Amino acid sequence: MPRPPAGEVGLIAALAERFAPPPPEVVLGIGDDCAALDLGGPDYLLWTLDTLVEGVHFDPAYISLKQLGRKSLAVNLSDIAAMGGEPAYALLSLGWPPDRELSAALEFGVGLAELARNYGVAVIGGDTVASPRGIMVTVAVLGRVPKAEMLTRAGAEIGDGIYVTGNLGDAAAGLEILRRGLAFAPDLAAPLLKAHLDPEPQLAAARVLAQKRLAHAVIDLSDGVATDLHHICRASLAGARLEAGAIPVSAGVEAVSRELGRNPLDLALKGGEDYQLLFTSPPDAGPELMEAFGRAGLPAPIKIGVVVSGREVTLVTASGEEIISGSGFDHFRLDLGCGKA
Amino acid sequence: MPRPPAGEVGLIAALAERFAPPPPEVVLGIGDDCAALDLGGPDYLLWTLDTLVEGVHFDPAYISLKQLGRKSLAVNLSDIAAMGGEPAYALLSLGWPPDRELSAALEFGVGLAELARNYGVAVIGGDTVASPRGIMVTVAVLGRVPKAEMLTRAGAEIGDGIYVTGNLGDAAAGLEILRRGLAFAPDLAAPLLKAHLDPEPQLAAARVLAQKRLAHAVIDLSDGVATDLHHICRASLAGARLEAGAIPVSAGVEAVSRELGRNPLDLALKGGEDYQLLFTSPPDAGPELMEAFGRAGLPAPIKIGVVVSGREVTLVTASGEEIISGSGFDHFRLDLGCGKA
Repeated sequence: MPRPPAGEVGLIAALAERFAPPPPEVVLGIGDDCAALDLGGPDYLLWTLDTLVEGVHFDPAYISLKQLGRKSLAVNLSDIAAMGGEPAYALLSLGWPPDRELSAALEFGVGLAELARNYGVAVIGGDTVASPRGIMVTVAVLGRVPKAEMLTRAGAEIGDGIYVTGNLGDAAAGLEILRRGLAFAPDLAAPLLKAHLDPEPQLAAARVLAQKRLAHAVIDLSDGVATDLHHICRASLAGARLEAGAIPVSAGVEAVSRELGRNPLDLALKGGEDYQLLFTSPPDAGPELMEAFGRAGLPAPIKIGVVVSGREVTLVTASGEEIISGSGFDHFRLDLGCGKA
Repeated sequence: MPRPPAGEVGLIAALAERFAPPPPEVVLGIGDDCAALDLGGPDYLLWTLDTLVEGVHFDPAYISLKQLGRKSLAVNLSDIAAMGGEPAYALLSLGWPPDRELSAALEFGVGLAELARNYGVAVIGGDTVASPRGIMVTVAVLGRVPKAEMLTRAGAEIGDGIYVTGNLGDAAAGLEILRRGLAFAPDLAAPLLKAHLDPEPQLAAARVLAQKRLAHAVIDLSDGVATDLHHICRASLAGARLEAGAIPVSAGVEAVSRELGRNPLDLALKGGEDYQLLFTSPPDAGPELMEAFGRAGLPAPIKIGVVVSGREVTLVTASGEEIISGSGFDHFRLDLGCGKA
């Protein structure tokens, strides 16, 4: 899987400028995890779409078609989670290469249907096309969120705690195991492989944050903290300081990093595809957060830093401070919005 | 541009079976030009998405990036038209190859923005990804239609007249000119090239049909009458008989067909991509149709046949009857619905 070139922020802005300003019922347009529409009623309609491309986002040598079906929906549900919402409907566009068995498309469908059922999503249409090379999947999802509960990237306040809902770097470490054929004990490798091949969208955690108004700003971790926290900072006109010692890194990520001679924080902060939530909460919200997550049967969120003035994301290590903002795994996102770059 | 293999109707059905039955607010799911949702209020929400793939649906040697931007939205607006609706919002997923200038993506954006503005569509987000080879575009569109006015593929009645909103085969003839480098007088070639490179969605005609309740069944002509009329017949449990002499064929299609030694009806009925509307109207609706289209400043629709019993689409020629149903240009659509196959 070739690593794509870096994002083109100038082009993003330029493309977005081409589009006419949206009408007033568009509550959120380009630049958050979902677009949000006020079409009347108590809820905003949330809308997102994501594309996975063979050779860029996945390699069928590692991922089963069933897992791919699940993941192609999961990455969209993660965008709905980032708004505090609940998903409802999906459309699928499937590009299928002529040299690949059509029965494999059925396996893909089984996986997609499975995750859809788990999260109460109805797949209600789509498009299927020939692909000259490799599988391409685009899934679009509609969801809803009560108007008073919608979470966005903007709204982080100086002094807020910065939290994540789970370990960081597991998905990136899992990908390294698959790519390099690394051998690890199954109990060490299994959660990493699962994180890469079959991520779970953090919809339950998102609803806790939304219903209890416990978060000021939220994003889902698709590109890695280094990039995604930068998005929160840009949208919130704030900076962030992370404590290296507080970053939750699993034993598996430690082991894979040792094998590769890399710093585990590199995988954790720049690896991407963890699909955990990254959010900021008021300075005094800690106990309430822990209690609410506990009551919901969810693992306690982990505080990894604080929101500060400025615009940079810095990491405080034993040897000092390091600026990490603006980097990360970017998939060459020209970024027309909806949750990316 | 390789011609993709034929559609896989068995797979379509099999894939659709994998998905749980949709909840009751899903008024139309898999199997029409758009999905339709009843989220309260006087309108149904219409939702569709379409993918265009380099080497399958377009060749950048023929189409400019700006035209591609327009067309990637136009094909979706054509699906909204097929429901009698009005488009409102769009999301874009753009797959961009590393070897292609990013400035060309801006041209694409200019074209997309231009057509969006023409039809009052707000582009409110999307996704951009690296593509290992060739440009890939998926556009998703939301629109609306008053509940009492929605048009579908189902509802054609025996005895209905079958109409199209314009000439057939122009787009296919335009593609032949481009592919083969045929030389024709500009006044003959220009409308054919425009039909292929820059089709106009028939939204105004659709609104006339919807508001005046003048159509029993509607589909947009993406694959060609041979295929698309078959969809109406399948959805309406009816058959169709077309009059060869009534099929509207332009002088350009005649000329290109002569050059290629082909029957012009072949291009007209199986060429695809005309994005005209194909609809059925009650036997006595003819004069009202002509008057309504005339008052709206639209070209008169052309009657090409009648709805009959059975399930087949037949073409009546000087030499007899020929069954043409079920064929046509199909882009290997596994067809998960939303307007295809």
